Amino acid sequence: MVVTLLTDYGAHDDFVGVCHGVIRSIVPEMPIVDITHGIPRYDIRQGALVLRNTLPFMPTGVHVAVVDPQVGTARRALALRCHDGRLLVGPDNGLLSLVWDLAGGIELAVDVTHSPFRLEPVSATFHGRDVFAPVAAHLATGIEPSEAGEPLDPSSLVRLELPEPRLEDATVVAHALGVDRFGNVALDVHHETLARIGLDLGATIELEVRGERYLATYVSTFADVRAGELIVYEDAYRTLALAINRGDAGTTLGLAVDAEVRLRSR
Amino acid sequence: MVVTLLTDYGAHDDFVGVCHGVIRSIVPEMPIVDITHGIPRYDIRQGALVLRNTLPFMPTGVHVAVVDPQVGTARRALALRCHDGRLLVGPDNGLLSLVWDLAGGIELAVDVTHSPFRLEPVSATFHGRDVFAPVAAHLATGIEPSEAGEPLDPSSLVRLELPEPRLEDATVVAHALGVDRFGNVALDVHHETLARIGLDLGATIELEVRGERYLATYVSTFADVRAGELIVYEDAYRTLALAINRGDAGTTLGLAVDAEVRLRSR
Amino acid sequence: MVVTLLTDYGAHDDFVGVCHGVIRSIVPEMPIVDITHGIPRYDIRQGALVLRNTLPFMPTGVHVAVVDPQVGTARRALALRCHDGRLLVGPDNGLLSLVWDLAGGIELAVDVTHSPFRLEPVSATFHGRDVFAPVAAHLATGIEPSEAGEPLDPSSLVRLELPEPRLEDATVVAHALGVDRFGNVALDVHHETLARIGLDLGATIELEVRGERYLATYVSTFADVRAGELIVYEDAYRTLALAINRGDAGTTLGLAVDAEVRLRSR
Repeated sequence: MVVTLLTDYGAHDDFVGVCHGVIRSIVPEMPIVDITHGIPRYDIRQGALVLRNTLPFMPTGVHVAVVDPQVGTARRALALRCHDGRLLVGPDNGLLSLVWDLAGGIELAVDVTHSPFRLEPVSATFHGRDVFAPVAAHLATGIEPSEAGEPLDPSSLVRLELPEPRLEDATVVAHALGVDRFGNVALDVHHETLARIGLDLGATIELEVRGERYLATYVSTFADVRAGELIVYEDAYRTLALAINRGDAGTTLGLAVDAEVRLRSR
Repeated sequence: MVVTLLTDYGAHDDFVGVCHGVIRSIVPEMPIVDITHGIPRYDIRQGALVLRNTLPFMPTGVHVAVVDPQVGTARRALALRCHDGRLLVGPDNGLLSLVWDLAGGIELAVDVTHSPFRLEPVSATFHGRDVFAPVAAHLATGIEPSEAGEPLDPSSLVRLELPEPRLEDATVVAHALGVDRFGNVALDVHHETLARIGLDLGATIELEVRGERYLATYVSTFADVRAGELIVYEDAYRTLALAINRGDAGTTLGLAVDAEVRLRSR
Repeated sequence: MVVTLLTDYGAHDDFVGVCHGVIRSIVPEMPIVDITHGIPRYDIRQGALVLRNTLPFMPTGVHVAVVDPQVGTARRALALRCHDGRLLVGPDNGLLSLVWDLAGGIELAVDVTHSPFRLEPVSATFHGRDVFAPVAAHLATGIEPSEAGEPLDPSSLVRLELPEPRLEDATVVAHALGVDRFGNVALDVHHETLARIGLDLGATIELEVRGERYLATYVSTFADVRAGELIVYEDAYRTLALAINRGDAGTTLGLAVDAEVRLRSR
């Protein structure tokens, strides 16, 4: 058993340390993995994507995620047990919705807003400390989720809606999943899809973004091209991404989240 | 048993990692909680306040704090046992002085400057590694503080002096405890004090700072007001604070640490 | 047994957290020490120096270092057993070469590029996750390095070449080992060498850099001089260093890595 944490709390303050303290007050020896606390503030979508990318590398445990712009409002607080045995804890805002399918789907959902394990008084702003961390720590002791809150209908949970990539004749219609702080743009397609329209490593790809056309090279590493060149590459999570070597592809191409990117052979 | 660490060492260098290495060389399996290493460099007061806020969320253990502008001078190095069983380790500069009362007061104080557990040669600049970490790790094994150094009279320890808030008729005279990096200003009063002069959530509060008057709304979250509005709110540690939604209250109001802030009903 | 990590992955992303997850998937309870993840991106030399400084403070274990500009190329991936029992894991680019002597020299070297313990498919860019972390975790279980890869001739490993300091009559010829982000310049000499030409704490030292001469004071702490003064001091790792109190010695003196610095009595 481990507890993993993913938040937008950052590395400067005591938020993360206090959550560790709360967990260790309940389960002192529990291994804790800080997946990251560098999710951009309130960016639920980026949090959900990073959680989806990283969870396959985590041992089965209690997986807490907190990116929570509606903290202090009536949004529900969740604990979920998935069919593969993973337990997910976090706000009901879509943050967990990309991973529960990965984990075999939801077996049991409870609302832990008024959990007997919460720390009282619950603050208006720090449910990581007062709700999610103590609930997660108790679940890590083996307590049943049903004892941690009120049952919920899984179909009532907030889901993140992502556009669907598609194939139109010889064009792959992809979308910007997210833009990292270097301006690299993750797309919602994998190598296999490009391969289907005959695009393989080394190919020149014609990109169409908001009516403008660009040429990119399909490479395996940045080192394969000169500074300033536009590339398509497979990132470490096997997602295809757009980048400009030593540049900022997101800004240069004017790509916001969900923007359509059309890729075809040239 | 756990060891907790709070320092101004930052997240970029190897200082924190080396302290962990020293601790794990003595007690390899010991749970360690990094409360924060983001205290502003040499800001003893901010360190003392964050330690006071966060310690109640930590399991009982050995609590190391290092914010130490006088490292290398004759300032003493302390290990303290409090009446509630907590052990505190750090420099004798006031950093620990706000928490020992929280912990029931000092039962035993020793000067660990020449502790048999220190790493020799002790450097002039890195007592976290050479004195505090190894002393803390040995205390975490259950060794008596009296074996870690020379006895001290607790009344001789350096204390941080904070101004006292007070009630003058229908005015609460508070002070700026600290200003965080967003410009939010923690005050030395709690909700209960404002309630005594009839100020409750939703009230408009007249603030007086250096002769200037301002109007603030007493709200529970930033979301309750528009950008640019001045608010009073209870932070996650139940301390009242001043903020400007998406602004910098400290700079706008010219508030330095210990500055007087008068609050009254309007 | 512990696993230590030193990388240039930074504190913002999920790279470190994912490596922890991979390690804990194999050895859930293993103590992990993050020596630092703040090595400047791709700065093999700085990584090697920090590893050399910090390893003596780490318990014996599996020591992973990843600063890997050639990831995805044919550079080899190493696991080494040293004569003192320490195990080193990282790319074959010189990063480990300053510590294996500290650790008694190499007893056994293997190439783990195609280790049976690697995670497949191995990505082109994230060997920390796919090769080094899982190999290290398996070694931490006690598995023999010989089972983790193909034997290598230790003399074939890439070594970092550092200039040799020397004594020329009454002049110490030193070199800039590295420049930290404050502009402090570590030199490749120790106090004992300066003492041999009669330089002791309090002395005025004549420095010669690229033909220019400067006067520095040999002090034990920054507090001993005024702002703007040039000093020579012993850093926390007992290496002599140049600094300007509240200034940037590296830039002011135009000192790049390996630059010659001549020190003599005045």
